[in-house]
Amino acid sequence: MPEATSISVLRYEDRRLAGEKADVVATEEPLEIRVEGRPLAVVMRTPGNDRELAAGFLLTEGVIKSAKDVFDITMCVDAGSAGKGNAVDVALTHPGSFDFEKLTRHVFTSSSCGICSKASIDSVLKRRKPLSDGMRVSASILLSLPQKLSREQPTFKSTGGLHACALFDAKGNLLAVREDIGRHNALDKLVGGALLEKRTPLHGHIALLSGRASFEMMQKAHAGGIAVVAAISAPSSLAVEFARESGQTIAGFVRGRSMNVYAGGERIVESK
Amino acid sequence: MPEATSISVLRYEDRRLAGEKADVVATEEPLEIRVEGRPLAVVMRTPGNDRELAAGFLLTEGVIKSAKDVFDITMCVDAGSAGKGNAVDVALTHPGSFDFEKLTRHVFTSSSCGICSKASIDSVLKRRKPLSDGMRVSASILLSLPQKLSREQPTFKSTGGLHACALFDAKGNLLAVREDIGRHNALDKLVGGALLEKRTPLHGHIALLSGRASFEMMQKAHAGGIAVVAAISAPSSLAVEFARESGQTIAGFVRGRSMNVYAGGERIVESK
Repeated sequence: MPEATSISVLRYEDRRLAGEKADVVATEEPLEIRVEGRPLAVVMRTPGNDRELAAGFLLTEGVIKSAKDVFDITMCVDAGSAGKGNAVDVALTHPGSFDFEKLTRHVFTSSSCGICSKASIDSVLKRRKPLSDGMRVSASILLSLPQKLSREQPTFKSTGGLHACALFDAKGNLLAVREDIGRHNALDKLVGGALLEKRTPLHGHIALLSGRASFEMMQKAHAGGIAVVAAISAPSSLAVEFARESGQTIAGFVRGRSMNVYAGGERIVESK
Repeated sequence: MPEATSISVLRYEDRRLAGEKADVVATEEPLEIRVEGRPLAVVMRTPGNDRELAAGFLLTEGVIKSAKDVFDITMCVDAGSAGKGNAVDVALTHPGSFDFEKLTRHVFTSSSCGICSKASIDSVLKRRKPLSDGMRVSASILLSLPQKLSREQPTFKSTGGLHACALFDAKGNLLAVREDIGRHNALDKLVGGALLEKRTPLHGHIALLSGRASFEMMQKAHAGGIAVVAAISAPSSLAVEFARESGQTIAGFVRGRSMNVYAGGERIVESK
């Protein structure tokens, strides 16, 4: 299980040192994402599904537009200082059209990092084409998703340290789950996995987030073509604003028999 | 309460639409951080304590070394496209020594974003001087901190959408609490507040994190001089590794009467 690292800890119980014990923590390691052999970005991630992460990152950050732009993705034998298994290279279908300087700038300016130029925030909010996905999902199905996800989160159970994203179809069938120390990575892996299977844009699908929904999570879902996002926790104000402008549905506090729908309520139909 | 935004939601209860109701969500807006009038970075943050956020960000990202480097921090009257109240300018004591290109590069390469060059990760891990803080804290006091924090989290209670960081002295006295949509921002505000009061480096202090502890949170705490970090949730493998190399104490799952200590256990003494 590369997602978890074994570690020795001092365990305190009943306010006193109970002794040293073996424990596991969620693994966090850097992944260098290269395009045509040149380092583009490094993300702090939980190892696993790294080709998916690279593909998803490039799509949701706007570096590539579709699966057609990717020729091949390989784990680098020579990962240099990144360490074995910690570098991945994306070969493009049309490397000639690859403007590295512009790309670097773009990735940094609209990355998942919370650091970007305001110009790019403006342009992102304005530029995105609203999703016209006419899908419908019943309230009962949306409410049933968290329980389906919780049955599929093995590493979270052992470490308590991972975010998860799950992809469902409109009937509530679980299609994929990805876990990562970074919530953005979990979503990138999910979208990247679909891209590698040539299933993007993900019309008619639902993304379930194990935590909160920020602006950037909605943005990444939009880039993957996902019209309906359900979060177990709260959305932010800008996540709601973005969803309303981009034609997305966003539900929050999806727990048990209740939830709040912040935008795109027309896609949710009454349960039979 | 600028930390929360009023919003209208569709409320589903017992699996059915119960109607439209007024709700509040955590506010997320961009803050443009300028140095000597030039935009350096934009962070997605919850408004409030923005001067502290700018000061803390510059310190924990290594742009400034101490409070002496800051001449003044002002909210910009002309925030341009960032929007009113969303730009802050830091005037430096020695603007002549300010290398903007290098600075931009530095901030992007070791930012809180999870995106950085591997070279910088290496250098960060190696370069940091281990903290030699000889402080001691009793296990009982560490275990008592989460309850003290939960009494001071007004916006989280209303929105469920904010991370919190709290600063305590070694006796467990609560000195400050900061909440933000981004966990890094909450810690930057805490450290920045101390910097503006000329109390950094924060020897003899404890930082309590409401969530998980990643590599970058430990790195930021280290930059603020904080030797003891307690988290209510799990640490990552790299957070533990960093703490061990940098001479920090890290406790996780600090809940009720039990916790795990992953590094720096010598600072924790038995309760009387």
